[in-house]
Amino acid sequence: MTVSDRWLLPDGVEDILPPLAGQIESLRRDVMDTCQRWGYQLVIPPLIEYLESLFTGTGHDLELQTFKLTDQLTGRMMGVRADMTPQAARIDAHTLGHEGITRLCYAGHVLHTRPRHMLTGRTPIQAGCELFGSASEAADLEVISLMLEALRVAGLRRVHMDLAHVSIYESLITEAGFDRDTEAAVFDAMARKSVPELDALLGDCPAGSGGARLRELARVSGGVEALDEARSILSGASTALDAALDQLGRVAEMLARDYPEVSLGFDFCELRGYNYHTGLVFATYVPGHGDAVGKGGRYDAIGSDFGRARPATGFSLDIRALVSLGERPSKRSGAIWAPAEADSALEGVISGLRMTETVVRALPDDTDTNPAERGCDRQLVKKDGKWVVEALA
Amino acid sequence: MTVSDRWLLPDGVEDILPPLAGQIESLRRDVMDTCQRWGYQLVIPPLIEYLESLFTGTGHDLELQTFKLTDQLTGRMMGVRADMTPQAARIDAHTLGHEGITRLCYAGHVLHTRPRHMLTGRTPIQAGCELFGSASEAADLEVISLMLEALRVAGLRRVHMDLAHVSIYESLITEAGFDRDTEAAVFDAMARKSVPELDALLGDCPAGSGGARLRELARVSGGVEALDEARSILSGASTALDAALDQLGRVAEMLARDYPEVSLGFDFCELRGYNYHTGLVFATYVPGHGDAVGKGGRYDAIGSDFGRARPATGFSLDIRALVSLGERPSKRSGAIWAPAEADSALEGVISGLRMTETVVRALPDDTDTNPAERGCDRQLVKKDGKWVVEALA
Repeated sequence: MTVSDRWLLPDGVEDILPPLAGQIESLRRDVMDTCQRWGYQLVIPPLIEYLESLFTGTGHDLELQTFKLTDQLTGRMMGVRADMTPQAARIDAHTLGHEGITRLCYAGHVLHTRPRHMLTGRTPIQAGCELFGSASEAADLEVISLMLEALRVAGLRRVHMDLAHVSIYESLITEAGFDRDTEAAVFDAMARKSVPELDALLGDCPAGSGGARLRELARVSGGVEALDEARSILSGASTALDAALDQLGRVAEMLARDYPEVSLGFDFCELRGYNYHTGLVFATYVPGHGDAVGKGGRYDAIGSDFGRARPATGFSLDIRALVSLGERPSKRSGAIWAPAEADSALEGVISGLRMTETVVRALPDDTDTNPAERGCDRQLVKKDGKWVVEALA
Repeated sequence: MTVSDRWLLPDGVEDILPPLAGQIESLRRDVMDTCQRWGYQLVIPPLIEYLESLFTGTGHDLELQTFKLTDQLTGRMMGVRADMTPQAARIDAHTLGHEGITRLCYAGHVLHTRPRHMLTGRTPIQAGCELFGSASEAADLEVISLMLEALRVAGLRRVHMDLAHVSIYESLITEAGFDRDTEAAVFDAMARKSVPELDALLGDCPAGSGGARLRELARVSGGVEALDEARSILSGASTALDAALDQLGRVAEMLARDYPEVSLGFDFCELRGYNYHTGLVFATYVPGHGDAVGKGGRYDAIGSDFGRARPATGFSLDIRALVSLGERPSKRSGAIWAPAEADSALEGVISGLRMTETVVRALPDDTDTNPAERGCDRQLVKKDGKWVVEALA
């Protein structure tokens, strides 16, 4: 290892420098403040937990994404959180233990063993909201609205939202009654949306069976017209599926009314990245960025895995990615340059100014004394024995 | 592993709940804003790095405190940061690479393999400032002043500051010319301030030697009078030691003038926890809490280990501990309760209010509808066909 190698960072790991770091901090604050104005209370879940508690109720994907550590105090295995949603569910189920509705929000780094996307790398900054204790559709609508509000705060234009319902796939695959290998192969082909593979796997299923319906449904995606197509494919299959489609329809209506600027799509066999979800799920995209910029949905099962059944829905986003994709007005207000001179009146003036302004003080061995390069637009100068602020020459 | 075990957190790891989480977030923001008003620019160093870069220029203590991970992409060993100061030094030396003065600040979680103190646990929230490119005493005074300012922001009363100078011990131990084993034993006894062990190890050193002076110095601590005692013990030893004592004297003078409320002490053989420091160091304490609440000092060597020599000084504090120890005025402003009712006028009023206020919306399946328990002090009610805010009955 030579000196020049020592400062190389691992792939997908980065230093965030000024002014980007300031923009991230500013968006993080604005998103958290928005969530809090909607009644969501801030929690700070720990960076590490025992693996059993990190993986309770979550899927295999999350296990692969999680860095493992040995606890030197007990010898047990811990993990660095790869997702904060299950942590919020654990906090709701056990640490808080409130009856009735609980609304929580959080923001912090998570770590992934492999980068999920170039922009997020392996250390995304996850922010999110979770609503526990309500199975109502109003709860789903609230978190979807709040997520769109957060994306607006981030300055995102031209947002597209995909709606899906996890129970559709689950109900059809259960009805099909495949053996485990076939089921895994179908899941895999479905996740990759590989129509030829699905044709090969499901082509022999009798018309009207779960398998045949799945095969047809995999070809359907798009706007509101897709919902009608799905209705005709699933017609007569089960009342649960009808209810799922009806719910998708009502959410689409609300969105068209309250967020007409958001384009809408349906993806009836959406599976990617939903590890622990159970009902209505949603993901938002912006043009030119392949990964979802915000996603969420219902996950009513995690709580019961922690020993306390609680309906739950929520969303999360990556603050780091949002800053790169959104357009926010710059908040820079300049700074005042102050000389190094030892003078108690100057000290007083600087203390006063620093209550509201940025004051950068020169140091006696400062070789590079161009205040403008330090972001200063004004300076402190002595005039007629008094210190005054004036514009930089 | 039973269901009831799954939510147990490792020792020294905690969920931070409302309202504490909100207080931590608020202090974190106020401290970062204060640093930025002094001209320090925010950076966000990564949670993980290769071990070589985390440990460059730092001591063995930091290695023991660092959790290790395998990078699945390369097979190389990475660590989760246990201290952000060396990361800031790496960013200054390489990622930024500016000539002249660079001022950086940061705030984030660090992880420790073992808890350093009960209040901080294994996941402290470190915030700090680092000033690179100035070897001047004015730079040391600036970071000390800024740290005291941050402690004031945190609402800390009765702050005590210990001043020390790492070069005193180093210069004396080098002059003593011990073999490695003896040197290690002296270091260890000194760190624990064990006078009997030091007597045994150093009792035979001839008067006026480095060893004898060390032994005498280990007994000296206290206020300004201790400085005079140290002067007499070290008199005639070397001009470098005289310069170190003179510097301690000048810093003490500045503190007595600008921060008369801070009590001051000297600890000439302070070693604990200074892994990479080279000059003037300082630590602050509050009554009833054994661990330092803020510490820092000069570390001119890390930059050169990264291939670019840069004088450096800075400080860091643990936001989590500060919130428990300080007294800050509460900022809670209450919230407004809104009914679940579907009504487009109500939606409009809620959207408007949420620009500045917290509005908690009822949900149709909410069983526990006591708004006061949700932190609400007002409610939205319909009067004469209009939605108005009124105090809770």
